[in-house]
Amino acid sequence: MTFFEKLDTSVRTNNSLLCLGLDTDIHKIPKHLVEESDDYIFEFNKAIIDATYDLVCAYKPNSAYYEADGIEGLASLEKTIEYIHSTYPDIPVILDAKRADIPTTSEHYAMASFDYFKADALTLHPYMGEDSLEPFLKRQDKGCIILCRTSNPSAVDFQDLKVDGKSLFILIAEKVVTWDKKFHNCLMVVGATWPEQMQEVRALAPEMNFLVPGIGKQGGDLEGIMKVGLREDKAGLIINSGRSIIYASSSEDFAEKARLGAQKLRDEINNYR
Amino acid sequence: MTFFEKLDTSVRTNNSLLCLGLDTDIHKIPKHLVEESDDYIFEFNKAIIDATYDLVCAYKPNSAYYEADGIEGLASLEKTIEYIHSTYPDIPVILDAKRADIPTTSEHYAMASFDYFKADALTLHPYMGEDSLEPFLKRQDKGCIILCRTSNPSAVDFQDLKVDGKSLFILIAEKVVTWDKKFHNCLMVVGATWPEQMQEVRALAPEMNFLVPGIGKQGGDLEGIMKVGLREDKAGLIINSGRSIIYASSSEDFAEKARLGAQKLRDEINNYR
Repeated sequence: MTFFEKLDTSVRTNNSLLCLGLDTDIHKIPKHLVEESDDYIFEFNKAIIDATYDLVCAYKPNSAYYEADGIEGLASLEKTIEYIHSTYPDIPVILDAKRADIPTTSEHYAMASFDYFKADALTLHPYMGEDSLEPFLKRQDKGCIILCRTSNPSAVDFQDLKVDGKSLFILIAEKVVTWDKKFHNCLMVVGATWPEQMQEVRALAPEMNFLVPGIGKQGGDLEGIMKVGLREDKAGLIINSGRSIIYASSSEDFAEKARLGAQKLRDEINNYR
Repeated sequence: MTFFEKLDTSVRTNNSLLCLGLDTDIHKIPKHLVEESDDYIFEFNKAIIDATYDLVCAYKPNSAYYEADGIEGLASLEKTIEYIHSTYPDIPVILDAKRADIPTTSEHYAMASFDYFKADALTLHPYMGEDSLEPFLKRQDKGCIILCRTSNPSAVDFQDLKVDGKSLFILIAEKVVTWDKKFHNCLMVVGATWPEQMQEVRALAPEMNFLVPGIGKQGGDLEGIMKVGLREDKAGLIINSGRSIIYASSSEDFAEKARLGAQKLRDEINNYR
């Protein structure tokens, strides 16, 4: 199945626009798990996934958290993605790794993300331009999620610079729309902390899926982005929440509490659809 | 030793501005090595390093190539960096991984690159702004190498956009200069394929070190960049070459041929100093 086939299926089957961010930090894993298992990163993820598979439209492991634990962390990442594919094959895995380099190097990042780690989609930095993204774009069964308006406060530093009256993030959105016409597999990152900017991007890309970080710990405006960001078909947003759900409890009930948090947020999102 | 202490030492001791890019591709490793050793990625790197340690100012493993081989490739990357640190402690290791994300995620990339893989310096994408880079910048013993003008043809797509008459890459260079005033550990990537743009960036940052990719396979203009890019002290450029040196031969003499290539390029660079 392609990324988009999986996404359509999971959005429909689970009636959900919620993407669960697997930002698994070894320092926040419940102590009993760390004591019980050698591969507690994987065991934590597995328990969270088994408790939420019918509530989410995607899982989004954040590469940095696994890389911080080195080889062992990356082995747990590999195992986590394999587990999702084999157990819940309709749920797409978005690897949040924010890559992009010169073409020959990007080819190798595409091999790493899509062939080795077997992600269905990958987040990408736009700064180096089209040829830096083409090795990802040409993998048309995969989702290419290009940073447009990021959720962090310093997004304003460069993304708001005005080029002939237009903001840089808007020029990037326009470019992504042209790439999508050619490759049919683009998405954009548009942070939940910027509803006004999301409205502008939605106007330019009425049919594109947006990955929306920034709900939860970052204080994004769910109501605001649902008002301006939904497509006409009441979908088109992949709303990520990670830390505020997966670390809801640090006791034995962590998976149960994660399920409650995921259910609450999925339903809250659906209330605005 | 900090990154800059190492760099100053290696530039002086080896009379070199040459950075050797360890873009180690399993498909290009000499066949006899693949047959002889289980860890042929490391053995290849080790042989190249042992043959060039007195000719370079830095080694630059490119993370993508190791990630493409998954856990095994990353274990070889770890071993390669450890080998350089233990055997040639004065030569800095630049991890070319082009990271940057929201602050909490960048913290984890800093842990991965600096604490786990033990890189002395790291390449970084600027698009997400200051807070995305601060977790790296605050590690003042490490070098933070921020993309300014990249060597690829599509660099023009966004980096040339004009903001009030100034190009985006110039605005980024100005910002990097202000960060460097605060953190004292910034460098910029300025591609050898853009001598005119390098001249502009050098004017803004007369004392900064630039990492210069694009010589060799990418067709960069060595004479051109040496004319405009050198600092007054005849240093300040870290000129990378990778594939055209490390794959000079695919036979038993690969390390010897790599040494010849490195020597030739180091000397050619020095002729322009």
